[in-house]
Amino acid sequence: MFKDITPLLADPHAFKTVIDTFTSRYADQNIDAIVGIDARGFIFGGALAYRLGLPFIPVRKFGKLPYKTHHVEYDLEYSTDKIELHIDALSPNHSVVIIDDLLATGGTAAATCELIEKTGASIAECVFVIELAFLEGREKLKGRKAFSLVQY
Amino acid sequence: MFKDITPLLADPHAFKTVIDTFTSRYADQNIDAIVGIDARGFIFGGALAYRLGLPFIPVRKFGKLPYKTHHVEYDLEYSTDKIELHIDALSPNHSVVIIDDLLATGGTAAATCELIEKTGASIAECVFVIELAFLEGREKLKGRKAFSLVQY
Repeated sequence: MFKDITPLLADPHAFKTVIDTFTSRYADQNIDAIVGIDARGFIFGGALAYRLGLPFIPVRKFGKLPYKTHHVEYDLEYSTDKIELHIDALSPNHSVVIIDDLLATGGTAAATCELIEKTGASIAECVFVIELAFLEGREKLKGRKAFSLVQY
Repeated sequence: MFKDITPLLADPHAFKTVIDTFTSRYADQNIDAIVGIDARGFIFGGALAYRLGLPFIPVRKFGKLPYKTHHVEYDLEYSTDKIELHIDALSPNHSVVIIDDLLATGGTAAATCELIEKTGASIAECVFVIELAFLEGREKLKGRKAFSLVQY
């Protein structure tokens, strides 16, 4: 059930189409920051933040951020994982877009939403390049807005 | 000896200055692809590849790429690490720029150079936002070209 995104990244026209589509979607939405999920979300998130002229905020796997953090632990199929965010990364008046390449079971995306909400910031939308719709990851996002370019 | 780059990422003007400086440097150099190092190199590399209209090629920690790979193992202070690249990512006629946020001891950058050279592609330059010059990472690059915006 793995979707390989490296051919998309290797095609500048396709990559540009993804970034420009997301740019149009969020340009007039008063977004304050782009939150990228470690690690493939950084590729799309870096380009999107650059294009929109917005701060880029990394959500990282545990142990990779140098300052004080909020963290959230969540279940994987046979284990748990933990992600974190600098405590000073966002403020309660901020509205953010969370970006990742893929929405699968939704575990990481849901944990990232929780992490953002710990800062008091609000989530305008979670955006994905690809959504594996049959895995019903959207359910885990519990009513938070989500958008994907391609659904399987 | 940790340099926290999150304030730079949170400042759209500073982030844009970095990306635009690198863009000017490589725009007329007949570069065929931007190679980003997992994970913070993805943030800068995604934006740079977008801006230059070039393919983005991820070099990843071992076990994260879905197709056949080249890999290189290298020494850390008290252990070893392994990185990999899809075998079809580059061709011998390609000239690439390798990008990461930080040049410290140079272990990961040197291993990435080896990985690229396994494909037969050539390295136009390795580029970093920050260089911890006193760690002499450049020595490990053994004459391959390297450029950094800020040196400590």
